Amino acid sequence: MDTSFNELMDSKFQNLYDDEIQKNFNQNPYLEDFVHAMVNIIIKYMKNCHDRSQKVIEFKEPHELNELINFDLEEKPENLAALMGYCRQTLQYCAKTGHSRFYNQLYSGMDVVSICGEWATYEIAPVFLLMEDAVLKRMRKLIGFHDGDGVFAPGGSLSNMFAISLARYRKFPESKSKGLYSLPRMAVLTSNHSHYSFQKGVNFMGLGQDNVFRVNCDSEGRMSISDLENKIKGLLSQDIIPIMVNATCGTTVYGAFDSLEEIADLCQKYDIWFHIDASWGGVVLFSDRKRYLMKGVHQADSITWNAHKFMGCPFQCSAFLTREKGKLQECNGDPVSYLFQQDKLTYDVSYDTGNKTIQCGRRIDAMKIWLMWKGKGDEGFAKKLHHAYELTNYLIEKIQNREGFELVHQPTYVNVCFWYIPKAIRNLPDNEIKKTKLSKLAPQIKAGMTKKGSMMVNYQPVDDKVNFFRMILINYDTTFEDMDFTLDEIEMLGEDEVTCVAKPALGPKPI
Amino acid sequence: MDTSFNELMDSKFQNLYDDEIQKNFNQNPYLEDFVHAMVNIIIKYMKNCHDRSQKVIEFKEPHELNELINFDLEEKPENLAALMGYCRQTLQYCAKTGHSRFYNQLYSGMDVVSICGEWATYEIAPVFLLMEDAVLKRMRKLIGFHDGDGVFAPGGSLSNMFAISLARYRKFPESKSKGLYSLPRMAVLTSNHSHYSFQKGVNFMGLGQDNVFRVNCDSEGRMSISDLENKIKGLLSQDIIPIMVNATCGTTVYGAFDSLEEIADLCQKYDIWFHIDASWGGVVLFSDRKRYLMKGVHQADSITWNAHKFMGCPFQCSAFLTREKGKLQECNGDPVSYLFQQDKLTYDVSYDTGNKTIQCGRRIDAMKIWLMWKGKGDEGFAKKLHHAYELTNYLIEKIQNREGFELVHQPTYVNVCFWYIPKAIRNLPDNEIKKTKLSKLAPQIKAGMTKKGSMMVNYQPVDDKVNFFRMILINYDTTFEDMDFTLDEIEMLGEDEVTCVAKPALGPKPI
Repeated sequence: MDTSFNELMDSKFQNLYDDEIQKNFNQNPYLEDFVHAMVNIIIKYMKNCHDRSQKVIEFKEPHELNELINFDLEEKPENLAALMGYCRQTLQYCAKTGHSRFYNQLYSGMDVVSICGEWATYEIAPVFLLMEDAVLKRMRKLIGFHDGDGVFAPGGSLSNMFAISLARYRKFPESKSKGLYSLPRMAVLTSNHSHYSFQKGVNFMGLGQDNVFRVNCDSEGRMSISDLENKIKGLLSQDIIPIMVNATCGTTVYGAFDSLEEIADLCQKYDIWFHIDASWGGVVLFSDRKRYLMKGVHQADSITWNAHKFMGCPFQCSAFLTREKGKLQECNGDPVSYLFQQDKLTYDVSYDTGNKTIQCGRRIDAMKIWLMWKGKGDEGFAKKLHHAYELTNYLIEKIQNREGFELVHQPTYVNVCFWYIPKAIRNLPDNEIKKTKLSKLAPQIKAGMTKKGSMMVNYQPVDDKVNFFRMILINYDTTFEDMDFTLDEIEMLGEDEVTCVAKPALGPKPI
Repeated sequence: MDTSFNELMDSKFQNLYDDEIQKNFNQNPYLEDFVHAMVNIIIKYMKNCHDRSQKVIEFKEPHELNELINFDLEEKPENLAALMGYCRQTLQYCAKTGHSRFYNQLYSGMDVVSICGEWATYEIAPVFLLMEDAVLKRMRKLIGFHDGDGVFAPGGSLSNMFAISLARYRKFPESKSKGLYSLPRMAVLTSNHSHYSFQKGVNFMGLGQDNVFRVNCDSEGRMSISDLENKIKGLLSQDIIPIMVNATCGTTVYGAFDSLEEIADLCQKYDIWFHIDASWGGVVLFSDRKRYLMKGVHQADSITWNAHKFMGCPFQCSAFLTREKGKLQECNGDPVSYLFQQDKLTYDVSYDTGNKTIQCGRRIDAMKIWLMWKGKGDEGFAKKLHHAYELTNYLIEKIQNREGFELVHQPTYVNVCFWYIPKAIRNLPDNEIKKTKLSKLAPQIKAGMTKKGSMMVNYQPVDDKVNFFRMILINYDTTFEDMDFTLDEIEMLGEDEVTCVAKPALGPKPI
């Protein structure tokens, strides 16, 4: 950290308090300095994020953080220098999610334009509604909807719940006023590799978690069409009404794409709402080479597409799109005279979209994606996708040709799932003992890389497969060399773990 | 606008594209310039916000905006100068919600520290969880909960739904797995002056809008305790189970506070979850002089408190607090091995809070309020509240003593509701003709002030009272002179409307 700069700032701001900068706002000499000083702290962090000599994470235990930072809130104010200090510390102990070696979540990299777009987002104005409209319209065009509607939701889980809500309303419009009491049991069908938000959603929405029916997947994580039809038939025979089938485009772990055309046919046959959770995979629609993965997408009744995942917006930016205009308003709307004055004389009230959602005030999520899209064009997203595929293909090849590494499956998207099998267990027979050893290894390697701060990669078990690593390859800054580094590092940490059996685990509560 | 600066920026950035600033991030010479240039645009907007010589809103019809700004998204990228231009235009046509004469919503003013805190919020890190914990803990202390739990939700509507969800789960834990099908009808009770989110919530949550029972209010907008008890008894006699009573602290229109102690007694008597929607009024807990308005608050089972309203955080920052620890996790949690690894070796997993909510990824809403609280201390919020009360009392006195102005009721909080009655109708008998004329006047005055950009004040009808103005007085910059200005302006616009009958209304679709 630049000590001289810090000292300068500290000496300037250490006798200044919040009151000073809020007062006489437009002529206050400290206001601008304070904002720029804060922005400098953030820019420094952004740069560190993309500097490979910096740790991906400066890991501290919660109890250590508690000793480093005084989190307690008090009656008395603290000065501006102290606040700037807190910002520096906070960013220091954040995971650098923009780092070229952050492969942990379904996002990575910092899109500067989008970040600035988010900063410039102040409510309230029709200008944002026009931006929202432009983004949703362009998305619908990529999908192939001729008309339709949409809204931004606070995250993909809620977008998926919006779909359930529309599906329920279409089948049983009386549920809006009467609730579910006198209605038949309803079911939501989704694959056992799909996102857990359906499980959470049906609980919240009164449908009950037992009424999410999990359809089996093939070895690549795609929903089995025959099992889907069997489950639908089984439900109908028990007088349980299937209201929605969810297809996933880009599953969380494998990155699998369900077969949309076949699912669309079944939904049509049995008159079921067809939702697509393309939170993670929607971006393939930008690419002439890859959009075949979502063939049939235009047949969906609704789609979730998270711009905070692949596309690179800061969280939250989840679009919910639907084919039929007006249904969102009809399903969620409620006439509230004190909020949505229909006697407004200033503008066409049809631009008021608030009543389409279940929220009252909403964050403006549209400007950051709109501005970013302006700056990249469709082709910018396609380019980012193709870069991610290059990294993926490189990594797959390396894994296939390197001793001790094993792919979990052959990826179709940019999730690469693999095990590292240390020398000591490499030649053991494939039995429970080997599985148990392997299962414990990923958490240990992960703890090692976190402590070192060299990179971040997620791990998880799936079906009968024990803990494996899942690399998410979307950062525009990530290179082939980073891939080599990653495999070297995993091998090194893995061998280290196996040989140093006596080494104590990290953390206060190893399980 | 500073043309020379714009030109300088434009010439520098007009041949630069997004790709350039994202590439070689940490050594890119343009990155820092671009961010600072964008921040300068925002700072300029912030200053304009607090400059009375600037319009509160530069009003443009949506169709005019469509001509001014090219909203369409294309295949090709636009250059950075163009993006900066879009930001300037966007902010130009935003309502200046920070303006000293913006009285339209339940927020006003721009808290610079909180804005910078929001900018510095990057996921993901335990450091944010500790901040969230510190804020919720301090809030619970002010409430008087000895223990308890909480979480930030994407807005007050969702916080209120979290309350319904806990109430339902406590009464019928089997609803989580089985849904509502075989359960008795459930009811939520709330006053007819309370927020509409309960209506939206029960629809979304499968309880049905018919099962929100509206309790009558007295003339001051407070829930009638006798009507509440009668309604509870009536429900029970029909085998409808009242699962929750909501009390409002700070109603949207009148700013009324329900009588918490009496409601708590009834909830205890009939074993009903007691929720308080203190989204707008919670801030009185900071003031020794005003916290009597929420006497009995510690008896609540759960509380919604929006820091993006009075406290001044940028939207969204809604805290949901509950008395019992562990219930949120029990009610909303779902074991998801691939996301919430319980075999993590890096830190104590009890700090992972994501599973308490219905969301997956969450925006970090805690840092901005935490940093602001550090900078103000409890006493900073008390000071802001007392300033608001001074403005309120001044305005009330002026209205009472000025010809043509009439208070709708005597405020207890900082919402001031009143009519302006123009000379021409002032002496008409109180009949339907007068009511109709008066009802149409507020929309016309509002359109007039919006077109001029002189100020923004909301209006609405309530119960049998026709359209009246509601002033929200919380901006730290607003002065007594602004109050005088406001009344003068309303009088002038009102007289103007009445005399110029032939004047065409604004907007393409006057209703």
